Amino acid sequence: MMYDKILLNHGAGGLKTQRLIRQIFQKHIGNAYLQQELDAAVIKFSSHKMAVSTDSFVVHPIFFPGGNIGKMAVCGTVNDLAVMGAKPLYLTLGLIIEEGLPITILEQIIASIGETAREAGVLIVAGDTKVVEHGACDKIYINTTGIGAVPLNVDLRPQKISPGDKIIVSGSIGNHGMAILAAREGLDFSPPLESDCANLNYLTESVLAASVNVKCMRDPTRGGVATTLNELAYQANLGMKLWEEQLPIDSQVKGTSSMLGLDPLYLANEGKVLIIVSSKDAEKVLKEVQKSEIGKKASIIGEVTESHPTKLVMETELGTLRMLNMLEGDPLPRIC
Amino acid sequence: MMYDKILLNHGAGGLKTQRLIRQIFQKHIGNAYLQQELDAAVIKFSSHKMAVSTDSFVVHPIFFPGGNIGKMAVCGTVNDLAVMGAKPLYLTLGLIIEEGLPITILEQIIASIGETAREAGVLIVAGDTKVVEHGACDKIYINTTGIGAVPLNVDLRPQKISPGDKIIVSGSIGNHGMAILAAREGLDFSPPLESDCANLNYLTESVLAASVNVKCMRDPTRGGVATTLNELAYQANLGMKLWEEQLPIDSQVKGTSSMLGLDPLYLANEGKVLIIVSSKDAEKVLKEVQKSEIGKKASIIGEVTESHPTKLVMETELGTLRMLNMLEGDPLPRIC
Repeated sequence: MMYDKILLNHGAGGLKTQRLIRQIFQKHIGNAYLQQELDAAVIKFSSHKMAVSTDSFVVHPIFFPGGNIGKMAVCGTVNDLAVMGAKPLYLTLGLIIEEGLPITILEQIIASIGETAREAGVLIVAGDTKVVEHGACDKIYINTTGIGAVPLNVDLRPQKISPGDKIIVSGSIGNHGMAILAAREGLDFSPPLESDCANLNYLTESVLAASVNVKCMRDPTRGGVATTLNELAYQANLGMKLWEEQLPIDSQVKGTSSMLGLDPLYLANEGKVLIIVSSKDAEKVLKEVQKSEIGKKASIIGEVTESHPTKLVMETELGTLRMLNMLEGDPLPRIC
Repeated sequence: MMYDKILLNHGAGGLKTQRLIRQIFQKHIGNAYLQQELDAAVIKFSSHKMAVSTDSFVVHPIFFPGGNIGKMAVCGTVNDLAVMGAKPLYLTLGLIIEEGLPITILEQIIASIGETAREAGVLIVAGDTKVVEHGACDKIYINTTGIGAVPLNVDLRPQKISPGDKIIVSGSIGNHGMAILAAREGLDFSPPLESDCANLNYLTESVLAASVNVKCMRDPTRGGVATTLNELAYQANLGMKLWEEQLPIDSQVKGTSSMLGLDPLYLANEGKVLIIVSSKDAEKVLKEVQKSEIGKKASIIGEVTESHPTKLVMETELGTLRMLNMLEGDPLPRIC
């Protein structure tokens, strides 16, 4: 028998857990590995370089324009593998659910996970479900851990970045952060502002196929473009300069950010990639990115410099230079 | 600068997150993979059969006699790999921390994780830290996902179980469940009753080296020995019979269970393995298990039967038969 809400017993590892797995999980994310219901999935793995990444998702609200916590939990980990040049293959799924969550809500989330995983071409090979008392978590938290195969000739590292390299962003920035803020604060946009939450793995694959001179990629999630580039500048021990007029920012994001005193450069993105590529291949890679539906607004937004190592600066539209530090505060907790 | 409590900003992915990682995490669990601070760790992997398992830990209280949530988060996933015959190699670590958690508490937990991982011989290759508002989780929840290498000749599956096979448990049962209950309810035991929380990977390795006739192994965590054997009986489509007088149960667990109306067969264990082995190798495997410090109280507790397929029964000390179903209720939520 099914219930309409999650009970503590659904996490007890007994009969109710088993029924939940068979009736909801197998339906949406089932495959030969999960069906075996073993303590660990045993998988043939023939690559010699494996990429591994983990992320927990606590986004609030759990449904927002453009996505939900389930879709995000797949994209987020797929993207962390993709930016390392890996082909994402397998995900694990760890759920912490608050007692009382309507089962229809859980099923919507699991269905999104299934759909997004199929879209990315990854299988969910292992899972775990825990239930905590009402009040001991906020609806649902999700961990995904991803395993990918890295082609032997791919080696993306910040240490490969050189002065003169160009910085490409695959599309408009700040949309996820602003969509979450809007959902939380009840801001209405017309047309509605959506999170950019998307799988990046096909895009990164085509970028790597287009140029062997891609040095490094990163997805600018928490902390946004400015924080991610600060990390890269630090790791490469080089400076970076952005050109404000080249930044693709949707007018709604720009306008609302300005009104609220937020900077889109620090807002999270969930379907964007920063690509550092040698100057000579920058235009070629840009065109490749723009071929993708999610890369149409891609732009070359800056370059790597020998000057001001470890620092990120921006040439503003007024021609002045502005220093962009790492994110210090947290304007939007639980953004992912 | 360090703070004495976790702030929301520690999870924002900016400067405070970076400092937390460098000052606490790298100190206790650091290694070459984590030091690179990449979106995904890239690892050489030369085995052709990979085991993958994930588990989230929400145990309450987070410190208990015999362990804490950090130690458990390592042992739990190491053991899920070990019972599949895998050599555990890599773990990922996903933390969800409640705002306000004292940093000294976090550091104790991370130190335990480091110590337990070193003991098991696994490296923590990727991590993620999220912070939620006070009240949006209970102190700290931990996800670990494990990757192991399965030797090509190892193939443990419930489908290999045959009638006549013996069932071995590696030690006394119910200790973890009872230790958590005691910690929660303030029960005093003298000598103190400790959780059995321990890494099983060296024990399972020696068992597999001792006999090629081990059919299947499982660690009886949530739901206890009775639920785990029910799952195996169902998957093998065979019956199982336990002999009550052979069950190793510590007197404190036995006495308190009886007083509280609990059954040790349904209490969680965090350092025990059930081994199903052909009858002819049962004594040999038992002796091998008993050589280990954590296997001294191991016992042959039952056998696989052709009769009553998918069901578990127990021959009681009175000579009657008692049916043991899967766990239906949940006497102890948040046991792991």
